[in-house]
Amino acid sequence: MNTVRLAIDVESGDFGPGVIIAGVLDAMKKTPSSFKAYLCGDRVQIEQILYKDLVQSDRDKFEIIHCSDKILPDDKRTSAWKKRADSSIIQSIRLQEQGIVDASVSAGDTAILLGAALFILGRLDGAVRPALAAFLPKIHQKKPVLLLDVGANLDCRPEQLVSFGVLGSCYVNRYCEVETPAVALLNVGKEPSKGTRVIGDADVLLKKKCRNYLGFIEGNEVVSSDADVVVCDGFTGNVLLKAFESFYRLAGSMLENDQKLLTKVKSHFTVLDPESYGAVPFLGIKGTVLKAHGGSSSRAIANAVLTAITAVQRNAVWPTNARPKGC
Amino acid sequence: MNTVRLAIDVESGDFGPGVIIAGVLDAMKKTPSSFKAYLCGDRVQIEQILYKDLVQSDRDKFEIIHCSDKILPDDKRTSAWKKRADSSIIQSIRLQEQGIVDASVSAGDTAILLGAALFILGRLDGAVRPALAAFLPKIHQKKPVLLLDVGANLDCRPEQLVSFGVLGSCYVNRYCEVETPAVALLNVGKEPSKGTRVIGDADVLLKKKCRNYLGFIEGNEVVSSDADVVVCDGFTGNVLLKAFESFYRLAGSMLENDQKLLTKVKSHFTVLDPESYGAVPFLGIKGTVLKAHGGSSSRAIANAVLTAITAVQRNAVWPTNARPKGC
Repeated sequence: MNTVRLAIDVESGDFGPGVIIAGVLDAMKKTPSSFKAYLCGDRVQIEQILYKDLVQSDRDKFEIIHCSDKILPDDKRTSAWKKRADSSIIQSIRLQEQGIVDASVSAGDTAILLGAALFILGRLDGAVRPALAAFLPKIHQKKPVLLLDVGANLDCRPEQLVSFGVLGSCYVNRYCEVETPAVALLNVGKEPSKGTRVIGDADVLLKKKCRNYLGFIEGNEVVSSDADVVVCDGFTGNVLLKAFESFYRLAGSMLENDQKLLTKVKSHFTVLDPESYGAVPFLGIKGTVLKAHGGSSSRAIANAVLTAITAVQRNAVWPTNARPKGC
Repeated sequence: MNTVRLAIDVESGDFGPGVIIAGVLDAMKKTPSSFKAYLCGDRVQIEQILYKDLVQSDRDKFEIIHCSDKILPDDKRTSAWKKRADSSIIQSIRLQEQGIVDASVSAGDTAILLGAALFILGRLDGAVRPALAAFLPKIHQKKPVLLLDVGANLDCRPEQLVSFGVLGSCYVNRYCEVETPAVALLNVGKEPSKGTRVIGDADVLLKKKCRNYLGFIEGNEVVSSDADVVVCDGFTGNVLLKAFESFYRLAGSMLENDQKLLTKVKSHFTVLDPESYGAVPFLGIKGTVLKAHGGSSSRAIANAVLTAITAVQRNAVWPTNARPKGC
């Protein structure tokens, strides 16, 4: 299998380049796949961190892309991709455009990353707007469910929700190898009269346009319905995804007086651990762009890298041969 | 302490009058408080269920309010309160208006119940729209957090969100005896630039109008922030509340191969059990109206009755002496 080439935005995230680079090194130990990491950030800083422990023979698994600029808090998030072209977050996307890497991972700002992905790589034909998609575990099933949008589009028109259904289906089809993924629309009830006008209109359109559409599901069915893809606006999806992250901590706090029980339970609950999936892909972009949590630990970054490798190997977001192979 | 008088809509819910009445009888065994239940529904059916096991001396704890009409699936939910005046759901509200009961519990349709409460009992001065409010557990704390709206208002204007903050504060102040409850606004991030325009405008208004406003919190902080009240639109709140319900089942499914462990864990997780809170109150109504889940078991109904008793005793939603005492 070909070497997977990944751009890593080492300046992003709350804990600095040390944590991000540690995550990449960790992923390299864990995966049987061959990959090369293009570390985007300050060259001197990266070299200091990277070459401390790295054996000489592993050095060719890394390329350092020096980035001289930084995103500032006052930068407009929609135009940062142009104004801060030499920042690490924008450079990691630019490497994809140039065909130098197959995918990129960043723990940077969602809106800036989306803007860069959209304007530099372009929107997939047929996608109304790109969406962020995340997997959640399911009751009694090994197969997870894909929830989208989880934060790229806070207010959605019916056409966008329909487009999310299509994008999600394509991703699950390739990433999870499900032939015809079933799609459901998140709502506050199952009856046709329930929900907002946007939800009602999206329901009508999904019935027409989606091959395997199951109709409405409620918040308690996300983890238990037959759906492989659950569609919602980015506000609801973001809140729901983060709530699932908190369950893991909530379980921990409820069992804190019984450490033995807690250790036992945690081994069953790993699938709920927010660090276990590491990063979520933008769907609807002509490229494989993964967004990691701002507060990612090195373990979360390691899992983000593993997710990116799988996404590339399965052509889950965007076929790797669709761009010129770079230098 | 005075006897609490409760109207119970026995025709509501998915499992029929038998389950609802069993729940009321169960609550009567569990509570040290004295209460009288006004069972609204078909007299013959209620008598058959109720008098089967009831000892003669307990009969005066019940009053049967015969209701000859029923809500039909095609009834308009906004006008059902007028058209189906003799249905059990509407009668249970009417008994409050007449001062015959202090509160009512129904597992019926949210929109019909809200319409009846709003048009028959009236809106509280200052409340833009009534909201449904539910408690969620918190990490490392005995005190829960109140989430609202959880389904009465799917699309919200900024003024509504602000009003929810005020209504929620008043309820937590009385029900949980917290002097100045802290209020937070649910959003997709903490920075001022995050969120929709409605969220941004509500944030500005809450800063002005709410004494103890903490600002934005994200989905993973609902169970861990310092907030006593978390404000959101009814669509997001409904999805979030139901997702919390599913966590209990998800935990169960993950541990199903280790029944001993599951039993141990469940005893810690009871606070997450959706049946444990039973029902949620409408806030912003001149009366204490509790909405139970359509799929309520008798245990859930018992807990709904206990919640209603506490709400009445603490004047948490609406002071009991504000209406004429009935027959």
